[in-house]
Amino acid sequence: MAQGRTPVPPQGHKEEGVNPIGDPLFLLGLDVGTSGCRSALYAPDGNMVAFGYREYSEYSPKPSWVELDPGEVWTKVRGCIGESIADIDPGEVAGLSLSALGEAVMPIDSEGNHLYPAITAYDARSSGYGDILKWWKGEIDPLDLFAITGTPLNSMPSVNKVLWIKENMPEVFEKANKFVCFEDFIIHKLTGRPAISHSMASRTMMLDISRRDWSEELLDLTDLDGELLSRALPSGCVAGEVTGESSGETGLPRGMPVVTGGHDQACGSLGVGVIGEGPVMDASGSVECIAAAMGKPVVTEQMMGFGQCCNCHTVEGLYLTLGFFPSSGIVLRWYRDTFAEREKEEAERRGVDVYDALTAEASKAQPGASGLMLLPHLFGSGTGQPPTLNRNSRGAIIGLSMFHNRASIIRAILEGVALELRRLLEFIEVCGIQATELRAVGGGARSPVWLQVKSNVTNRTFIRPDVTEAPSLGAAILAGVGTGIYRDFDNAIQTVYREISRFEPDPSLVPLYDRQYEVYKEIYPALVGIYDDLAELGSCDN
Amino acid sequence: MAQGRTPVPPQGHKEEGVNPIGDPLFLLGLDVGTSGCRSALYAPDGNMVAFGYREYSEYSPKPSWVELDPGEVWTKVRGCIGESIADIDPGEVAGLSLSALGEAVMPIDSEGNHLYPAITAYDARSSGYGDILKWWKGEIDPLDLFAITGTPLNSMPSVNKVLWIKENMPEVFEKANKFVCFEDFIIHKLTGRPAISHSMASRTMMLDISRRDWSEELLDLTDLDGELLSRALPSGCVAGEVTGESSGETGLPRGMPVVTGGHDQACGSLGVGVIGEGPVMDASGSVECIAAAMGKPVVTEQMMGFGQCCNCHTVEGLYLTLGFFPSSGIVLRWYRDTFAEREKEEAERRGVDVYDALTAEASKAQPGASGLMLLPHLFGSGTGQPPTLNRNSRGAIIGLSMFHNRASIIRAILEGVALELRRLLEFIEVCGIQATELRAVGGGARSPVWLQVKSNVTNRTFIRPDVTEAPSLGAAILAGVGTGIYRDFDNAIQTVYREISRFEPDPSLVPLYDRQYEVYKEIYPALVGIYDDLAELGSCDN
Repeated sequence: MAQGRTPVPPQGHKEEGVNPIGDPLFLLGLDVGTSGCRSALYAPDGNMVAFGYREYSEYSPKPSWVELDPGEVWTKVRGCIGESIADIDPGEVAGLSLSALGEAVMPIDSEGNHLYPAITAYDARSSGYGDILKWWKGEIDPLDLFAITGTPLNSMPSVNKVLWIKENMPEVFEKANKFVCFEDFIIHKLTGRPAISHSMASRTMMLDISRRDWSEELLDLTDLDGELLSRALPSGCVAGEVTGESSGETGLPRGMPVVTGGHDQACGSLGVGVIGEGPVMDASGSVECIAAAMGKPVVTEQMMGFGQCCNCHTVEGLYLTLGFFPSSGIVLRWYRDTFAEREKEEAERRGVDVYDALTAEASKAQPGASGLMLLPHLFGSGTGQPPTLNRNSRGAIIGLSMFHNRASIIRAILEGVALELRRLLEFIEVCGIQATELRAVGGGARSPVWLQVKSNVTNRTFIRPDVTEAPSLGAAILAGVGTGIYRDFDNAIQTVYREISRFEPDPSLVPLYDRQYEVYKEIYPALVGIYDDLAELGSCDN
Repeated sequence: MAQGRTPVPPQGHKEEGVNPIGDPLFLLGLDVGTSGCRSALYAPDGNMVAFGYREYSEYSPKPSWVELDPGEVWTKVRGCIGESIADIDPGEVAGLSLSALGEAVMPIDSEGNHLYPAITAYDARSSGYGDILKWWKGEIDPLDLFAITGTPLNSMPSVNKVLWIKENMPEVFEKANKFVCFEDFIIHKLTGRPAISHSMASRTMMLDISRRDWSEELLDLTDLDGELLSRALPSGCVAGEVTGESSGETGLPRGMPVVTGGHDQACGSLGVGVIGEGPVMDASGSVECIAAAMGKPVVTEQMMGFGQCCNCHTVEGLYLTLGFFPSSGIVLRWYRDTFAEREKEEAERRGVDVYDALTAEASKAQPGASGLMLLPHLFGSGTGQPPTLNRNSRGAIIGLSMFHNRASIIRAILEGVALELRRLLEFIEVCGIQATELRAVGGGARSPVWLQVKSNVTNRTFIRPDVTEAPSLGAAILAGVGTGIYRDFDNAIQTVYREISRFEPDPSLVPLYDRQYEVYKEIYPALVGIYDDLAELGSCDN
């Protein structure tokens, strides 16, 4: 479908932008994340030229509150921009765009100064926004809300944080000029005026994804003034230019175009060429996220039941569904920190990656880990049966016998995460979304052993693209499209997308993993009641 | 009830036997086990004076066949007897009795030579004796069989091995003069004539436990000649005297009384004074076994449903029920061998016990292990819901989160085993059997940390008696009763039983573990179906 689509003409098309390859101009892609920000300078052929990174912290002023300090984030963003352009003439940067974490939202004054910290997606103040969710259910059928916003009703979207502030901190609410996410916050800082992409706005549960503008119906319903929200634009549009003030703060040239970006998963998908149906991004770090593009909004009851969102993609006219589970690489990290002290020392001594040592160990165990299975929910479940996000769910090691050893346990971890991924892929396929091949990015993609396990377990092709930082590359592509460096998105992907390696399923293992998957699907339903009881037991102790 | 009971007058009371304390005479207690035999020489006050141990192996000529070589066992028994009396005048030994493993059975000729190896309890030839069990069900209501024998119908009892030989090796069956267990085998070797205690005979599923003799009804039913079985006597009766030939082989004096002993768990219970209702033996090694005395046979449908046997005790007139689970200390050993390489090295270097290091580590975790729970079935389930013995059941670690560490896991192991023990205690209490205090023996009893955990988790008093080898001490008591060294069993226990330490439940933790136990009870039912599927999946691979 989307192949060969004409992109929305970028606003403020930079007349002097010339067509790409070999051109001396650079593109700057920012990636503002949960725990740090990256600024990556790319040549138009997709090669990263320079990179800056700054870490920051989440804050929990009260239990289960999770905030970011926007001042600190802006300081760090400036720092990493500076680092990434230190060795070039900043005048050679054609433009900048940015990928950002979703949901996190903060009130700002007319100058763009924050009036309260940013409340993040996983913040669970006031018992997880229970009253607000109850209120929503009283006002609108969740399926209607899903049809408008592409968001299954849940506590994470930005609007619930805004409503919380309105209810609980009226004095802050009154002073707010706007409520912004990090995309519009940074664009405001750089250009003096906020703008938000449809991609990022999809994470607020206030965007009408079909009309691609703020939903009048929901503004009425929530009694929020539309003026409190930034103007919503397609991704890849010039939102403004670097001001004199921000030029001084960042080292970027005054007047440089700042282009609308997108939600990090949408930018990452763009960065690995997921701009049509078929290929799916598999981003595996601590958490694992898949993103599949769709040619039209899919907002069925089934999608909602599986907790699958339908966001605007960074390519206007396309949509993106995300699947997510919070316990992926973090499980292997837990194993490493708990049991691999010796392997860590050995790896340090030999100057190799301890994860390579662990996955090599796993290779010694039989496929199927001799009946040992892992439910990887060490950080809660992210998908699976509704409720999609079950914070009570926990990890389980099932089928343990005297004959299992370290290798079996590590293999069970690799396979358990792959089985959870297969579950996720099944959910989106049931909804009619294709997943012909998976393009793997993130830390998990660095392990050939794990990619092969994933390919075998899911019976699908896995590809490792030549991308180090998919979200910042996606942002750079948006900057390039917005400034005319690329003719269109297809041209951009043809220019920058390359593959390093390809993993095909071993046909001899398909029957084993098919059967193992059937058993795997029984585990969560068998344990979910026990986990609720354990959660209650735990809360009694507090 | 049993307090102050008059024991059955020992046969062949040794006239010159004088009453005990301070007397220079010794008592010899043998303990013939699954993997080795012990010979312990006791002073009448219960102090062990000398000890011999010899190891032997089980053999598996075919998968799931489990045999012992009777010739090897007899050689090793002779060896350890010799070692235990090497430093004394053998004439000072008043008598010998023996504790032995149950169920294992072999055909012998009239000279006492074995015609085939001993087939042990866990032998599962011919698909776990499926046809034989089917045959039983066709012939007799299992509840009637239970009422006669105190044995819930299962594949382990000796008679099923005898029937297997009759069916599958008629030439061996025809030649057999008798089928004997290790008690009667050794007594035959020592005295020239076999005899079996009611305690040991209870493990054959052929003894009428109320009449305390072989069941005529079952002899008829199985078409087995009663002459094929040894005479059945109460425990603590002189069965014969050491012959000239066996005197030469063992170094024991010719004419020394050989006294009927009992099943190892019954001898162990006697060794820690479990000769009345209330105190229960908790024997924890690799496996865990509890034994509770009863004043009369309890052969209800409920008992049978829980898989609880009702055996004749070593104290005539008393009965003993056993509870068992195969995955106890073996789970901590699995952890040690899988994850505690460093602790092992450190313990060796410092000359301390690695288990003490592990339980000390567990003490660093919170009671309840912060919601981490273990189903300890690494070697299958031993009790719990019927089917009592589920070889498909496996271990499970449930509730795992990023915040659990090594200490939480070890604590979960200690607590999981204690919770399984609580389950077992609940089963016998539901049947009306008391368990006011537990007298702990075996390797597990060496850990004060684990005993305290067991006390807290089960909300019961645990006692560590001053006993190193409870079964051999029980055998020595029988030798002493049989030879008149002790007036009666009460006198024997008053003389030899001492406590080292006592562990009382911490009242502040009782509510926590009560709630945790409720959750624990959900785990096995939740997983049993998955384990059946995993077993099927595993067998597909073979």
